[in-house]
Amino acid sequence: MRVRVLGVDPGLTRCGLGAVEGRPGAPLSLVAVGVVRTGADDELGSRLVRIEAGIEEWLDDVRPEAVAVERVFSQHNVRTVMGTAQAAGIAMLCAARRGLPVALHTPSEVKAAITGSGRADKKQVGAMVTRLLRLAEMPRPADAADALALAICHVWRGGAQHRLAEALAKATPKGPRR
Amino acid sequence: MRVRVLGVDPGLTRCGLGAVEGRPGAPLSLVAVGVVRTGADDELGSRLVRIEAGIEEWLDDVRPEAVAVERVFSQHNVRTVMGTAQAAGIAMLCAARRGLPVALHTPSEVKAAITGSGRADKKQVGAMVTRLLRLAEMPRPADAADALALAICHVWRGGAQHRLAEALAKATPKGPRR
Repeated sequence: MRVRVLGVDPGLTRCGLGAVEGRPGAPLSLVAVGVVRTGADDELGSRLVRIEAGIEEWLDDVRPEAVAVERVFSQHNVRTVMGTAQAAGIAMLCAARRGLPVALHTPSEVKAAITGSGRADKKQVGAMVTRLLRLAEMPRPADAADALALAICHVWRGGAQHRLAEALAKATPKGPRR
Repeated sequence: MRVRVLGVDPGLTRCGLGAVEGRPGAPLSLVAVGVVRTGADDELGSRLVRIEAGIEEWLDDVRPEAVAVERVFSQHNVRTVMGTAQAAGIAMLCAARRGLPVALHTPSEVKAAITGSGRADKKQVGAMVTRLLRLAEMPRPADAADALALAICHVWRGGAQHRLAEALAKATPKGPRR
């Protein structure tokens, strides 16, 4: 069962957006990739309005069946974490308003899903995204590649849960009668 | 010049909302006070949608000329800070979409404005809010009283800035000729 997922790497200055389509165990395909930018000197309120409008436009164009957002932690990157959390909140709000399922994945879950290591660096993640989507070159900026990595991670993790559910469904008739 | 301000004490479980009307140096009046609540067990996306709908309803009813939101810091209250930041972001988004000016005040700015001390406790802030608005009893829960404190702080701080601007405007003709 193919699924179309929009990944969001939240940020105020650059909010990465990347959509892929696929299913676990089959080649994935790129749907769209890019960033929504807002000016660092603009008022916070207008920046949030711009992020919302950009994400709405992406949801209209891409029509994803699920949205995957990077889980933001308060521990790291203290200077920008509030803006990042707010951009993430707006992405979740936009998805939930449309009734789309929203999943949060941590950076290390994404890295582990894409590269096999939860501590891979950005370059390695970018290289694997490029290879998995059979692209001619690495998507730039890094936020765009990270958004694609989130979407790929979600297809695969969702798939794993789906396969488990399938396996359980198949196993039930063969199980001991009660 | 009287101004009507909606204060928002952001939170996912309880988002405090309080509106006051007034001008510096004159008695303030209460417009409305309350909270928007969301279930701790609900999905994050639906909670954010509920917060947005609640704030929209308040903006429709209260018709404020400005919105004051508590500035959230990443240092304190790590467990809930992400949800708080997201609720604050949605309040700013709703206000900015209507073209309303949004101001952020820190908890210590609010405490200092209301009680004279930036380290006053919640009870002291609540007592002063009750006195300043000539209420029969302290607004509850504390989030509602805090939202009123934010709105009062904004009327007074905005007023101070306004008086400064007026004083400067008056002073200019009398200044040295260039």
